[in-house]
Amino acid sequence: MQSYREELWFNVPGRRAFINITPQVETCLRKSGIREGFALVNAMHITASVFINDDESGLHHDYEQWLEGLAPHEPVSSYRHNRTGEDNADAHLKRQVMGREVVVAVTEGRLDFGPWEQIFYGEFDGGRRKRVLVKIIGE
Amino acid sequence: MQSYREELWFNVPGRRAFINITPQVETCLRKSGIREGFALVNAMHITASVFINDDESGLHHDYEQWLEGLAPHEPVSSYRHNRTGEDNADAHLKRQVMGREVVVAVTEGRLDFGPWEQIFYGEFDGGRRKRVLVKIIGE
Amino acid sequence: MQSYREELWFNVPGRRAFINITPQVETCLRKSGIREGFALVNAMHITASVFINDDESGLHHDYEQWLEGLAPHEPVSSYRHNRTGEDNADAHLKRQVMGREVVVAVTEGRLDFGPWEQIFYGEFDGGRRKRVLVKIIGE
Repeated sequence: MQSYREELWFNVPGRRAFINITPQVETCLRKSGIREGFALVNAMHITASVFINDDESGLHHDYEQWLEGLAPHEPVSSYRHNRTGEDNADAHLKRQVMGREVVVAVTEGRLDFGPWEQIFYGEFDGGRRKRVLVKIIGE
Repeated sequence: MQSYREELWFNVPGRRAFINITPQVETCLRKSGIREGFALVNAMHITASVFINDDESGLHHDYEQWLEGLAPHEPVSSYRHNRTGEDNADAHLKRQVMGREVVVAVTEGRLDFGPWEQIFYGEFDGGRRKRVLVKIIGE
Repeated sequence: MQSYREELWFNVPGRRAFINITPQVETCLRKSGIREGFALVNAMHITASVFINDDESGLHHDYEQWLEGLAPHEPVSSYRHNRTGEDNADAHLKRQVMGREVVVAVTEGRLDFGPWEQIFYGEFDGGRRKRVLVKIIGE
């Protein structure tokens, strides 16, 4: 069994964003030389997500509005977590809806995707450097 | 390390359904000959889910109602994604709540499940042929 | 490829709780002797979650309140699942938001975590003995 590890770094200027990281994960897979196995892609921070969906800007707008409805940023004081001096409790909630990680099958040296699957980094508390872990195991 | 890959096909006549796919995944596992490892089962389409829960029709009714409350299909025009000509933005949202994939431990040649765990395909935008990927790695 | 399997047991006295199980998972990893691979940690019961987030009591309070808002326990009769004699339909819903499982990279014999990542058992229907499965594969 072989394994490969790489960190992807992000610094989103605003509070929230969705970034297509499929090309970076494909590059990791090529570098790994692994042909059959699993690729794990996970946010290393607890106010961010990695998820798979469509690369369509209207949908991303809908996600943004929907998540803000499910777990509003304001009023900041409505969250006990924010008494620690943070203002990002909502980001911890939004990340649970969208998920921490994806596991993608690797087949014949490629990410084994359906027709529209793309991997996204979902940032819910930006303005600083944060990481995604890519770990691939197989042969 | 061995690996096994199979696609399961579905064509749900209505818009939404939950289908127990545990027997199909067990068949894949038998065919793989793998005794110890991981089985990844994921929707290959971004308006569908694979998840593990109870095979109880009342609960599935509750999921349906609950998801419709969290991410209503109507009004279709309330979603920017639907300006592309689609009417399935809600399906992309519902799928995030229920998840894209499950990873199941394989132990002694069986899916290593608790007492009530069953694997479901969750369709949120039916009426066409769609796929689930089963990929098993191990020995 | 090596594999390791262990069950963790819990008996939460009340209905709901979040328990940090990172030390137990680290112990499993040490016992496995695996240096590079993946660790799967999943609830074996369908009214419980395993998830990764922050070990901060205020945040756990926020999760509790938020989940109760998204999927209220009462009125019990509002859920069709509860006609089976159960009163835990809400627990099946809450568990979908928080997730069944996490997959964690194993690197150099350690859980390959970002700065604040901790693994939690989320109980939504306590008062009885329930299990979490830890399965580690790699080399």
